[in-house]
Amino acid sequence: MLRTHTCGELRIDHVGQKVTLCGWVQKNRDKGGLIFVDIRDRYGVTQLQADETNTDDQVVERLRQLGREFVVYATGNVIERASKNPQMPTGDVEVQVTDIEILNEAKVPPFLIEDDTDGGDELRMQYRYLDLRRNVVRQKLELRNQINREVRNFLDTQDFIEVETPVLIKSTPEGARDFVVPSRMNEGQFYALPQSPQTFKQLLMVSGFDRYYQIVKCFRDEDLRADRQPEFTQIDCEMSFVTREDILSTFEGLIRHLFKTVKGVDLPEVPVMEYDDAMRLYGSDKPDTRFGMEFVELNDVAQNKGFKVFDDAQLVVGICAKGIAEEYSRKKIDELTNFVKRPQIGAKGLVYVKYNKDGSFKSSVDKFYSQEDLKEWAVKMNVEPGDMLLVLSGNTNTVRKQLNELRLEMGNRLGLRDPQKFSALWVVDFPLLEQDEETGKWHAMHHPFTSPKAGQEALLENDSQLANIKANAYDMVINGVELGGGSIRIYQRPMQEKMLSLLGFTPEEAKAQFGFLMDAFEYGAPPHGGIAFGFDRICAVFGGVDSIRDFIAFPKNNSGRDVMINAPSAIDNEQLTELGLKLNLVEAEEKVTE
Amino acid sequence: MLRTHTCGELRIDHVGQKVTLCGWVQKNRDKGGLIFVDIRDRYGVTQLQADETNTDDQVVERLRQLGREFVVYATGNVIERASKNPQMPTGDVEVQVTDIEILNEAKVPPFLIEDDTDGGDELRMQYRYLDLRRNVVRQKLELRNQINREVRNFLDTQDFIEVETPVLIKSTPEGARDFVVPSRMNEGQFYALPQSPQTFKQLLMVSGFDRYYQIVKCFRDEDLRADRQPEFTQIDCEMSFVTREDILSTFEGLIRHLFKTVKGVDLPEVPVMEYDDAMRLYGSDKPDTRFGMEFVELNDVAQNKGFKVFDDAQLVVGICAKGIAEEYSRKKIDELTNFVKRPQIGAKGLVYVKYNKDGSFKSSVDKFYSQEDLKEWAVKMNVEPGDMLLVLSGNTNTVRKQLNELRLEMGNRLGLRDPQKFSALWVVDFPLLEQDEETGKWHAMHHPFTSPKAGQEALLENDSQLANIKANAYDMVINGVELGGGSIRIYQRPMQEKMLSLLGFTPEEAKAQFGFLMDAFEYGAPPHGGIAFGFDRICAVFGGVDSIRDFIAFPKNNSGRDVMINAPSAIDNEQLTELGLKLNLVEAEEKVTE
Repeated sequence: MLRTHTCGELRIDHVGQKVTLCGWVQKNRDKGGLIFVDIRDRYGVTQLQADETNTDDQVVERLRQLGREFVVYATGNVIERASKNPQMPTGDVEVQVTDIEILNEAKVPPFLIEDDTDGGDELRMQYRYLDLRRNVVRQKLELRNQINREVRNFLDTQDFIEVETPVLIKSTPEGARDFVVPSRMNEGQFYALPQSPQTFKQLLMVSGFDRYYQIVKCFRDEDLRADRQPEFTQIDCEMSFVTREDILSTFEGLIRHLFKTVKGVDLPEVPVMEYDDAMRLYGSDKPDTRFGMEFVELNDVAQNKGFKVFDDAQLVVGICAKGIAEEYSRKKIDELTNFVKRPQIGAKGLVYVKYNKDGSFKSSVDKFYSQEDLKEWAVKMNVEPGDMLLVLSGNTNTVRKQLNELRLEMGNRLGLRDPQKFSALWVVDFPLLEQDEETGKWHAMHHPFTSPKAGQEALLENDSQLANIKANAYDMVINGVELGGGSIRIYQRPMQEKMLSLLGFTPEEAKAQFGFLMDAFEYGAPPHGGIAFGFDRICAVFGGVDSIRDFIAFPKNNSGRDVMINAPSAIDNEQLTELGLKLNLVEAEEKVTE
Repeated sequence: MLRTHTCGELRIDHVGQKVTLCGWVQKNRDKGGLIFVDIRDRYGVTQLQADETNTDDQVVERLRQLGREFVVYATGNVIERASKNPQMPTGDVEVQVTDIEILNEAKVPPFLIEDDTDGGDELRMQYRYLDLRRNVVRQKLELRNQINREVRNFLDTQDFIEVETPVLIKSTPEGARDFVVPSRMNEGQFYALPQSPQTFKQLLMVSGFDRYYQIVKCFRDEDLRADRQPEFTQIDCEMSFVTREDILSTFEGLIRHLFKTVKGVDLPEVPVMEYDDAMRLYGSDKPDTRFGMEFVELNDVAQNKGFKVFDDAQLVVGICAKGIAEEYSRKKIDELTNFVKRPQIGAKGLVYVKYNKDGSFKSSVDKFYSQEDLKEWAVKMNVEPGDMLLVLSGNTNTVRKQLNELRLEMGNRLGLRDPQKFSALWVVDFPLLEQDEETGKWHAMHHPFTSPKAGQEALLENDSQLANIKANAYDMVINGVELGGGSIRIYQRPMQEKMLSLLGFTPEEAKAQFGFLMDAFEYGAPPHGGIAFGFDRICAVFGGVDSIRDFIAFPKNNSGRDVMINAPSAIDNEQLTELGLKLNLVEAEEKVTE
């Protein structure tokens, strides 16, 4: 190596050694003939020093030429610092430069390469290679690497083997939109990029691989949001001869291993919650259980007292915010009311009840409810003096979603969503099928390969029971983020055929799309199940932030563009012709009217 | 788990325990009321046994229903076998069945699920999930998993961090043909799938990642051969602040680690050979050095003796096959002559010289050469009595290629290419540029990011010297297979611009394609270099076979098709329209005439 040590390596023990370091100029200053240069690499920062009175003139000249982000090669002697810097691991020493070379110059970066930068999002995306130089960004990718390694370490001990499944596969109409890849050798035909290796991992179970995993790129051509990217990474797993409990215990083991090794956190045993309970208590299938504030349904105490809004509602439901009755002025309550009335949430209004320290109640519905009425609410909701109730009403599904948003907002306001606190949860017993309200068509809530809960198979034959069938499926939720989900699979042809038929596949379509899988089920398929974790999301949760973007080295923007390399881009006609294609560009307007 | 033990787990110590196994019926037989069933899983095979006289009738009935590849769940007591089978790890015991359930039935497989199968290639590809059940195939993927793990273990100890680079990138006209992915959100534009993460890993060096690796899928839309797949996996690595020697020693370390941990083989230090020497001594830049049989150039002793074929040749060159002079009859020599005359090789003829045990020579050119002449050849080639010389002549580059083929053929015939013997080699100092004979255009032999050897940079300015510039590039070759290659990169904008200009890029094209990289070089790019190994090929070499196909779980055939899932396939017009495309199918004939 050009260097003898990294920039994070030198300590007091190295004093007296002649060393060579390579790195980037972090900052340089000249204090009356005493020149200091901090040089940086992935491993740390070391201070170089030279006194112009006893340093070679050429060396002094070069040191003075240095600008920020120049790449240098510096040789010198390690000496003890006069004024030590206990903030830096190398802060006890500095290197007295005897020789320096400029390996590469640097233009002034378009933004500061510091933890706090002055660069906006777009600029940092365009110069992503400079953004990645910042410690706070690089550390996110180092965390990702560490999690990746620990996932493998754990799964290795459990006899999982990694098998790579193909990236060029077949397009399926089910689920999200596929990215497709035109085939030159099979003109007019297309591969698709996998949304997940689902069918392949099931085939590996049919092959007897018993325990499979893969950390694998997957692709979805969907409109993008902050936490969605067109390409993302899954930790994809499958096991044979298992029940749901085997999967939960194995992958709870994985997550606990990750918390222990990566964060030094002993995650408590992960509780299991039924989907129906999650919806009833939190209005969400991915509740943030770092804090309580569970929903309490108030229909029996709040209805039939003359308040028409509540009387007409399918559900009246509230949460209790502890200890804020005094603090929450009219203004703050108005803020909350405006919050729930935002179009994304869409509540008509918000009812509050303050339980004052003196035992009295003050509410926005005092006109309709007596102190005794409100006392009943308080008892039902386990409210103590000083607490405040927030109550919404309406159609059950809608109001639950709304109150979920309000609960999370209150969690934020009250500091109950500490990113360094972790609360994990299994959510189980999801509905197997969902009906599209407009078309009446049934969709698989998880995917078409998910089996019904044991004992409920017969309900598949009864159209009026379809909505009541529970799936043998499970999600892992941490801090309100769905980190992963999976199911025990269908492994017999007749049930898979039945499922596809319920989802609207004709027998011919079912055969064309999934014939290979159903054929495989006839040659000795074991019972099996699995799970897939969103690797990018696990990284974000471990990093204590909401967005996955910084855990991806080269992310795309919300239009699916890589603004650094300028992709996607046009290709030439020759290449199109070779693929048996031509452009068929339609004005955006026309498309909408079509 | 449904099972208490795997099918590879039971030993004499388990005798007396009640166990439950799950697996596939490997075979079953009924010996006068004594029923034996071998059940198999990934971990092994265990014999089940039941005596109809003392077994529950229903159990006996079910045991008799079993067919090959049925999936069963069997409970019973572990007993010591009367006749032990020392060939099986579980052969000391058997399980006396008390209960059995058929978890899934199986149709008769289309080919035998045995190490030696009766299934042809196409059939096994179509039912790949059954082919993967065979031990010999599954073990190849287990080997792959093991190599994957050891690669990571080694690189972790060397401070490499894995960073995932994007799969949806930009199409580049340089190199092999890209697979492209139409963008829906950016209509009329295309992503490309990476042929390698080359530019991204270089950007990571600019970002200061210092040591990067990734085990990553790459894609090339090329016509396929046995050892090529449209998608393949690379072990992709890059390091900063290094010279060639640092790269060679680091990755020699990796390969030696793999041999040690995976094969238990101590690979000797890997010799370094210059490209020119490899071509001169083996006629190949990836010589199989498991055996010698180096080329010896004979121009000075074989020319000007009146044999016009040799006199007119640019090169007369031979190899010595030890000890076969007596054994090689006219017929066998004719086989060799036919071998080199095959169109793929294209030699005009083959000259042999036998050095008989009695000290005399017998050759196919006795008419032109005296015994003394041939003695001179023998001395030059270090031949001993009993050896045979094989000599070709012609244009230097052509005849070297031909003799390379003949040398490998002789290696095969003489059993010198033992797949369990490993000979590794670094080939270095490749030419930087190659000139297309027809168009006169220059191509980068490695890729456009490869730097010239130190000290040869100035030759880039001199058109007449271009062919003489050596690249600072290196390949690792084992047993005649190129396992990987890389180079020290260009890291300064002016040289990268010069290189692209030599390769025929206009400044505008260079900027459009690689502007982001050249921009990055202006913000403090460190000297860096790297290497990429073909992971599939490493697996094949470690597995001792030529074809990579069985080391890929779901390979494509030579037309780029996955015949199991039937991909690629047509997509519907709606999807095409959404992508701004329509089909433009041209008859194959028309295309050719265009």
